[in-house]
Amino acid sequence: MTIDHDCPGLLPEPPAAELRLEAVLHALADPTRLRIVAELAGAGGDELNCLAFELPVTKSTLTHHFRVLREAGVIRQHRRGTSKMNTLRVEDLAARFPGLLDAVLAAAVRCTRADRPAAR
Amino acid sequence: MTIDHDCPGLLPEPPAAELRLEAVLHALADPTRLRIVAELAGAGGDELNCLAFELPVTKSTLTHHFRVLREAGVIRQHRRGTSKMNTLRVEDLAARFPGLLDAVLAAAVRCTRADRPAAR
Repeated sequence: MTIDHDCPGLLPEPPAAELRLEAVLHALADPTRLRIVAELAGAGGDELNCLAFELPVTKSTLTHHFRVLREAGVIRQHRRGTSKMNTLRVEDLAARFPGLLDAVLAAAVRCTRADRPAAR
Repeated sequence: MTIDHDCPGLLPEPPAAELRLEAVLHALADPTRLRIVAELAGAGGDELNCLAFELPVTKSTLTHHFRVLREAGVIRQHRRGTSKMNTLRVEDLAARFPGLLDAVLAAAVRCTRADRPAAR
């Protein structure tokens, strides 16, 4: 785990060239983490505060999920004051695993729709 | 876990419409299982016997990996005599999660190449 940017507040992350497929797939293989990734994708590159995610898990569980995503190289985290700000590493993932994130996000949307009861 | 084909010897598997993204990603998030999937993809639809896979794991570990793949819906397994024959559920995966298997297989090939020492 190394830091590949000279950027204050950046939390440790793997450099783009060292992203491991198994770690990325493992990070994505969880419904809470998929929701985090889908929300970050929907933010279009904007940083989102960890506190902005309304998910039905405890704060410590959420912190764990963010760490798994960061250590796999799926997200980038900066400390800003007492907050942690998150972005998706879209370019790094696309360069190393072309099409993978898009396919996972599209599948996640389809599954969410299919699992949701139809509106009346 | 249900059987969606009236086919003797078919081992239990989820029907195509019930494949879960998290389960598929989890099944793929392992280097041994990725190698199995890559070999089956390379077989172009042919059935491969479990014994045909030369992987550096024990027989019981290999059996476990095949079961994880089958229960996630990534592979189909038939008993034929004392053998288990395996195929990749390419069409089912493509219908439910378009582009996902292709992106994972392409990424697996890239990673294998990158990890291998250059030939001299």
